[in-house]
Amino acid sequence: MNHKWNELERKMRETGINTVLITDPKHVYYLTGFLSNPHERFLGVVFQSGNEPFLIVPALDEEAARAASSIQKIITHQDTDDPYQLLKSQLKGPLGTIGLEKEQVTVARFERLQETLSFSRYMDVGPWLRELRLRKSEAEIDKMKLAVKLIEQVLTETLHKVKEGVTENELVAEVEFQIRKLGADGPSFDSMVLSGEKTALPHGVPGSRQIRRGDLLMFDIGVYKDGYASDITRTFAVGELSEELTRIYNTVLAANKAAIAAIRPGVTFASIDKAARDVIEAAGYGPYFIHRLGHGLGIDVHEFPSVHGQNEYLLAEGNVFTVEPGIYVPGVGGVRIEDDVLVTSSGVEVLTTYPKQLMNI
Amino acid sequence: MNHKWNELERKMRETGINTVLITDPKHVYYLTGFLSNPHERFLGVVFQSGNEPFLIVPALDEEAARAASSIQKIITHQDTDDPYQLLKSQLKGPLGTIGLEKEQVTVARFERLQETLSFSRYMDVGPWLRELRLRKSEAEIDKMKLAVKLIEQVLTETLHKVKEGVTENELVAEVEFQIRKLGADGPSFDSMVLSGEKTALPHGVPGSRQIRRGDLLMFDIGVYKDGYASDITRTFAVGELSEELTRIYNTVLAANKAAIAAIRPGVTFASIDKAARDVIEAAGYGPYFIHRLGHGLGIDVHEFPSVHGQNEYLLAEGNVFTVEPGIYVPGVGGVRIEDDVLVTSSGVEVLTTYPKQLMNI
Repeated sequence: MNHKWNELERKMRETGINTVLITDPKHVYYLTGFLSNPHERFLGVVFQSGNEPFLIVPALDEEAARAASSIQKIITHQDTDDPYQLLKSQLKGPLGTIGLEKEQVTVARFERLQETLSFSRYMDVGPWLRELRLRKSEAEIDKMKLAVKLIEQVLTETLHKVKEGVTENELVAEVEFQIRKLGADGPSFDSMVLSGEKTALPHGVPGSRQIRRGDLLMFDIGVYKDGYASDITRTFAVGELSEELTRIYNTVLAANKAAIAAIRPGVTFASIDKAARDVIEAAGYGPYFIHRLGHGLGIDVHEFPSVHGQNEYLLAEGNVFTVEPGIYVPGVGGVRIEDDVLVTSSGVEVLTTYPKQLMNI
Repeated sequence: MNHKWNELERKMRETGINTVLITDPKHVYYLTGFLSNPHERFLGVVFQSGNEPFLIVPALDEEAARAASSIQKIITHQDTDDPYQLLKSQLKGPLGTIGLEKEQVTVARFERLQETLSFSRYMDVGPWLRELRLRKSEAEIDKMKLAVKLIEQVLTETLHKVKEGVTENELVAEVEFQIRKLGADGPSFDSMVLSGEKTALPHGVPGSRQIRRGDLLMFDIGVYKDGYASDITRTFAVGELSEELTRIYNTVLAANKAAIAAIRPGVTFASIDKAARDVIEAAGYGPYFIHRLGHGLGIDVHEFPSVHGQNEYLLAEGNVFTVEPGIYVPGVGGVRIEDDVLVTSSGVEVLTTYPKQLMNI
């Protein structure tokens, strides 16, 4: 038994939950070491008091699951099998309160579970997993540092291809080529390269726009490596920027640094958001910072906690999240500077090391 | 109003459902033309009798939504807003039965909807959307043909890089570079390149294994273009194959062709699976064909319907799905040959055109 299972069993005893079913593929990876995307097929790991933990996987994943899983008992199902009946056959009844993930289990799956397993009540155990995953172990942090190192190498390599006339799409192609070439598992989200006034779209889509002098050029990119994500944004100046864009850049940079300077165990996530937002508001750009400061990072590229102004949760050692203030002025342009940070016993370690002073390329 | 909304309103009248909330991002794209990945944020489109349809999007997607959406009324929410209260403020009460997607809405979101909107009953309208999306329009088929053409070009270009000593990962890098370079939106799933005995893992993960003479080399790749997916698998021989692998290849090819020959409107999806499976079973490889024959294809790379032996749903003109029989012998190797097919008024059009005879490269 590893310490994660012990922690889970402790919580089961405390809450009187006899049976826990985990189906979020990332939680399954966290608990078993087996990472897969089951698409619409049924994947789950089950813990029941007095029963051996087991993994249910689609038959076509059996070999991969046996190679990776720290849980020995693996039940497989073909596409024509009913995984709910299979689940029932492995459980010892009667079930009292079942623990499941309310933010993962769909209404359809819930109804099937309820009619097949006839449990009396259910409880959300998603928070247990989110909390467990919140404090990264040293092994996890090492993986994240590697994911950061890889994406920074990708950014360095890709910048060699920037010249007037190259398109956003061509730079995305280069980013994704480098991601693979340098040995990452893949992008951790849709690689984003935006230029010129398109940088004012925080979720813009790269296209055939060509890079011109005077443009802002924004990269928001990340990779997965061994199942862990990195996520970095840097915004560059192609040639000289206008005075307004330079002021925007320096405001975002100051906000990024103010947020990072505020990070230490015991303060609220809201206070970190506020540290950045105060800087942007003081510069008169408050209405143009239209998203939260950041998000947790780990096995998911967006995971618990959300770093926004209402989050009174306290920072603790081992938390990893993004700090990514931005200013977006429609028709003019946008700047975002994003770092990945780790809360340490005494303060903060910034995992991303790529320079963030305004760089003219 | 476009025909999709008319169809939705007709179903609402027939079933007495006053209000429908659609949150699957792909369904939202289908209904509005606005495609986005909201991550954990709230995205939805709402149809209510006697009320203007509206889209709820995260504030940072507003500009993109206004540019793409055929629905004019767009409500935005910041990360600190409560999207459920916002939804309530836009609806005319009292709500009777609400229509939502049981396979999309999580238990957590359902509970929030129920406590905020106080609807009396709910009904699953996911099948409405799945059914609407089942019959592709000419405009949709044109997009899918383009997505197929692009991935076939990617495959052609990537094969130029195959030589002894190149790794699976290097070929994945080339696939993804070509995907971007040729102007696709991105891969429609994790690009898979497997070689040698690893081809026996239907969901194997590409790695640093080098290509050697005598290897099978399998590409399972696809792209999105304008929001529509392609998905193709071809398995090649690097030099000469053993007699057993050659027999396996030809059995899979015969199964692929038998399935395609069986396609016409009015027969069951189960019968298409059976046509392929019979060929593989007759050759003695039945136990090694461990997955369904295929899956629907469109805005999702895996969508309704599942093409397996228990699916008694009838094929109809406009359906697009994959035909991908495979044989996987652990320790020896695997072969899968996957085409994308369109059901026509009289039979079938195979959208994938890449040759599928055993090719020695």
